[in-house]
Amino acid sequence: MSTLLETINGPKDLAGLSVEELTQLADEMREFITHSVSQTGGHLASNLGVIETTIAMHRVFDFKKDRLLWDVGHQCYAHKILTGRRDDFAKLRQENGLSGFPNPEESDYDVFSVGHAGTSISTALGLALGAQHNKSDEKIVALVGDASIVNGLSFEALNNLGLAKRQLLIVLNDNSMAIDVTQGAMAKFLAKVRLSHTYEDIRDTTNRILEHLPLVGKRMEEAVENFKRTLRMAITPNRLFESMNIPYFGPVDGHDIGSLIGLFEALAHLHTPAVLHVYTRKGKGYDPADDNPCKYHSTGPFEVNGTSEKPVAAKRGFTAVFSDAIVDLAEKDNRVIAITAAMPDGTGLIKFREKFPDRYYDVGIAESVAVDIAAGMAKQSLRPFVCIYSTFLQRGFDQIFQEVSLQNLPVTFCIDRAGAVGNDGPTHHGMYDLGYLRMLPNMTIAAPADENELKNALALAAAGNTPFAIRYPKDTVPVIAGNDIPYETGKSVRLRHGSSEFAVVTIGPILKQAMEAAAMLETEGISVTVINARFAKPIDPDIFELFTQNKMVLLAEDNSIACGFGAAVIEQALQVAGEPNRQDLHNSISKAVLLGRPDLFVPAAPRSRQLDWMKISAKQIAETIKKLKSQPKTVDKSIQT
Amino acid sequence: MSTLLETINGPKDLAGLSVEELTQLADEMREFITHSVSQTGGHLASNLGVIETTIAMHRVFDFKKDRLLWDVGHQCYAHKILTGRRDDFAKLRQENGLSGFPNPEESDYDVFSVGHAGTSISTALGLALGAQHNKSDEKIVALVGDASIVNGLSFEALNNLGLAKRQLLIVLNDNSMAIDVTQGAMAKFLAKVRLSHTYEDIRDTTNRILEHLPLVGKRMEEAVENFKRTLRMAITPNRLFESMNIPYFGPVDGHDIGSLIGLFEALAHLHTPAVLHVYTRKGKGYDPADDNPCKYHSTGPFEVNGTSEKPVAAKRGFTAVFSDAIVDLAEKDNRVIAITAAMPDGTGLIKFREKFPDRYYDVGIAESVAVDIAAGMAKQSLRPFVCIYSTFLQRGFDQIFQEVSLQNLPVTFCIDRAGAVGNDGPTHHGMYDLGYLRMLPNMTIAAPADENELKNALALAAAGNTPFAIRYPKDTVPVIAGNDIPYETGKSVRLRHGSSEFAVVTIGPILKQAMEAAAMLETEGISVTVINARFAKPIDPDIFELFTQNKMVLLAEDNSIACGFGAAVIEQALQVAGEPNRQDLHNSISKAVLLGRPDLFVPAAPRSRQLDWMKISAKQIAETIKKLKSQPKTVDKSIQT
Repeated sequence: MSTLLETINGPKDLAGLSVEELTQLADEMREFITHSVSQTGGHLASNLGVIETTIAMHRVFDFKKDRLLWDVGHQCYAHKILTGRRDDFAKLRQENGLSGFPNPEESDYDVFSVGHAGTSISTALGLALGAQHNKSDEKIVALVGDASIVNGLSFEALNNLGLAKRQLLIVLNDNSMAIDVTQGAMAKFLAKVRLSHTYEDIRDTTNRILEHLPLVGKRMEEAVENFKRTLRMAITPNRLFESMNIPYFGPVDGHDIGSLIGLFEALAHLHTPAVLHVYTRKGKGYDPADDNPCKYHSTGPFEVNGTSEKPVAAKRGFTAVFSDAIVDLAEKDNRVIAITAAMPDGTGLIKFREKFPDRYYDVGIAESVAVDIAAGMAKQSLRPFVCIYSTFLQRGFDQIFQEVSLQNLPVTFCIDRAGAVGNDGPTHHGMYDLGYLRMLPNMTIAAPADENELKNALALAAAGNTPFAIRYPKDTVPVIAGNDIPYETGKSVRLRHGSSEFAVVTIGPILKQAMEAAAMLETEGISVTVINARFAKPIDPDIFELFTQNKMVLLAEDNSIACGFGAAVIEQALQVAGEPNRQDLHNSISKAVLLGRPDLFVPAAPRSRQLDWMKISAKQIAETIKKLKSQPKTVDKSIQT
Repeated sequence: MSTLLETINGPKDLAGLSVEELTQLADEMREFITHSVSQTGGHLASNLGVIETTIAMHRVFDFKKDRLLWDVGHQCYAHKILTGRRDDFAKLRQENGLSGFPNPEESDYDVFSVGHAGTSISTALGLALGAQHNKSDEKIVALVGDASIVNGLSFEALNNLGLAKRQLLIVLNDNSMAIDVTQGAMAKFLAKVRLSHTYEDIRDTTNRILEHLPLVGKRMEEAVENFKRTLRMAITPNRLFESMNIPYFGPVDGHDIGSLIGLFEALAHLHTPAVLHVYTRKGKGYDPADDNPCKYHSTGPFEVNGTSEKPVAAKRGFTAVFSDAIVDLAEKDNRVIAITAAMPDGTGLIKFREKFPDRYYDVGIAESVAVDIAAGMAKQSLRPFVCIYSTFLQRGFDQIFQEVSLQNLPVTFCIDRAGAVGNDGPTHHGMYDLGYLRMLPNMTIAAPADENELKNALALAAAGNTPFAIRYPKDTVPVIAGNDIPYETGKSVRLRHGSSEFAVVTIGPILKQAMEAAAMLETEGISVTVINARFAKPIDPDIFELFTQNKMVLLAEDNSIACGFGAAVIEQALQVAGEPNRQDLHNSISKAVLLGRPDLFVPAAPRSRQLDWMKISAKQIAETIKKLKSQPKTVDKSIQT
């Protein structure tokens, strides 16, 4: 079958096509993406929604020279197809394959590698100011969804947009749908605009814009001034953009390629920042995704037009355990409140929302305020649980410092996706939470290794009166024999007593890997001690006693080595070693081995491969111990004088 | 002299006073604050601006039960005076004295200890949602300045304000003045509103609001509905708040106590969040501050109505050195751009702004977007320098991770107020930057110890192609003999060769303290090695060689011990020790001593006292070494088998 799509190997190939052909191309791309995602998994609905907009942008702009910024970036598939990466979709989100997000290492057409929300307008503003300084004339376009524009970072950028005295086009891709329904006043405002007019209105708006922004015959500045005076190019004057003095055009139909091309051609020549408001349908063209865009936001492989996703072996993950446990906890304790930042599904709060709608808050993609709302609630004697992925909680770091840690308030952070996240790659790994949280006084940090520990940690957090963080990875919950020892803040548990000089101390479910490594080594005659630290803060002083036994202690974590759990153990062991009569500790702290993420970004790959890469898989832990064992022994020659 | 002020020992004492008496009280408080700040130093202009508003709030609300949230909080002096802390002003901002910011440990009238911007609306929203859950009826009031409301956190809170189905009053204190002139579109919008009407208009607005919000005779909900329909209570409908569906009242005169009392009484009974826009004059009533509110934002002691501040011995601080050095650099290198977040003066950019207005950007209190604008500029081959205090840069942590470190872009962070900051206290210390920055791959972190090192670090940063951070404290620049050794990325320098087993390795100007300690110890016959690490990342491997010499190594930093410089040295020394044939390192890493901030908040006090408290003053370093020397020696018994 010969298709138009097969003839497109770069944006230049769009040049000769008629609007009808481009529309056909959009249909083919829709089919291609649906088929491709059904094979590999990936983001579906958002990508189906922006195909026509993407085609029109690439037809009008030359993004070899012009710059296109994506926000969050999971909607860039059409862009990748059009920029020579069609064939790479067979390895979408695979190791050494095509990233699911923009990635400058993959293509010059990708400007920033992104994954967090609200960066498109802010970085576009930086590019525009840079171009202003360089006196270069490239066009800059930011495509931002209605879910991302409510982020504080977007607002800060909009508030400063006036710094740019040149072209900068913001395309507001409005599908009334973040990953879940977009929250907040701005979403309501956009929805009201949406409901207040007909399809004919939208066509009229498009025509009115094109009429007022002619490409020839009138000076653009004059046209813009005219626009500013009349504000007639929008159906409803958009008060938000108006109050910020940002020219606003729209809303227009985001699936009408012909009109979009005209609009981009006209708007490309504005010498001022401007917003084009585009209506799209998330999931457009693939019925199940169109009907259920939330489910098909990010999906595993599925059968195209089948009744459901391909069945995947249903192993229970940490998110699922949390999902049940937080409901149980809330049933017992009326003070429990759950807060999410646009991730009710990803963080496991759907059940909670159904059961306790009055105790559930979704603030949209706005992690900073999620933390502060929790701080306020904690002041009111409630027990708020803030459920945010590790990497996104970085947005709340300063709030965790000032409003939670400094006030010593009982806010609990339920940190999903802590550690390696698999195919989403570097923008999404949770590699820093142990560091950025353990620096803060008053904080307790638990890293449950299994189902019971997660439940116990939640119960401890609710019962306590101080800041609490619970981190767990995007992984299935291991079952670990012998780990059912009473759970107590700051207490570690020893799961294996080894006779060799080797001990492995783990934080979180890496315990499973350590236990498997120990079992492997046992068969080779190496008997290893395994300790589950359970807490990254406070560190159990019992762990230091390993050093007095002259053990070689491997400290393993699914987190950056820098500032991580291992570093915490060493820092505190050194403090203890400095106390009078604790010279027993001096002997072997030096023989600690830190295992975790080195000072590099972990590439996209299956999570199991990433653990291997970080040398914290069972196999790698065993290898490390065997290597250490084979090293020439030290005869310790240090006798202090 | 008997004054009204002397009769006010708590908000209850306001009850019997007439509007005339309250106005007299405001005058007395103005005099009291001016006199008090002239003695102790502190924030002047902002406090003079909100006296009448504060009196009116305390007259109407009962903040024993009701809750008053301050934003940034440096404008809380009148509030402190009215809540029984008048006599404590003699020790304003002194050790064990009155904090310059709200502090719950000081008074139940202070809800959060704050210092960062944008938290008042967000925490007020949390309190309101908590009250909603608790079905309690306390009134909640947030007072936010026009500078803070442009912060992304404020916006996120405003966008989510609809979650509260109850009273929540936001008082927008608009003095058209952040610490410097407020930046951005919103500031322009507010200024336009301000210029578009007369004093009579404002009086009319006040009367119209009071007429439409009667306290008796009509149901409040009805009044609000009526208000929402007509939007007639504002001179200009405020489009920003309108687009967010937030009832907006104003602007009104923030120095008219009588009207303010009426307004607060009326608005207190609204069953919905609302904004009251209040015009004030920063510095009102003290002429020099009124004329120059920027200078008198935060001041040292000065002569009341004298011509200038009391002369303070003019020692050159790091900020001053930076101020000159960045101008010099920009003269040589056209790619150098400076970005600040509302702190041109504090970060030392006034000269730069004067000299290079086109290469200077102030984005307002919006640290997140400051980082992203820099990232965009760096993509355009420029060399942006982002100048933000350590504690406020925490707001940009996620942006530094994704937009700078992950993209490996040459953005330089000039981090003033790194380490202990003195009297501003816990909200302002820069204790975490070494941790949150060194976790990030690609980052270089320099901590200059003196003037030349700061200049050299800036030059290195501009010449490089990767992320760079330069941290320096709020302190005078020491002159350190022998430190003029060529400056090279990641290279430390040895300033003293000691014959004893003690070595001190420092990062930043704590070097001075270590040198002084060494000099003291020399007189007592202890000869100490002193090394200036210069860089916290990368760590110079030469430092590890100290361990091979079986030294007792003190690692001293003006930063949290957790995740700090010392931890970095140990982490990396352990990595090296794990390499084949490096068992020589095994002997003494255990004898490292980490000096810096323990896991506690450093109280407000003079910086010198804080260094003492952290045991990194010359005296404390010397004491530590003497104590270690007197400890019983270890005979090392570890012989591995």
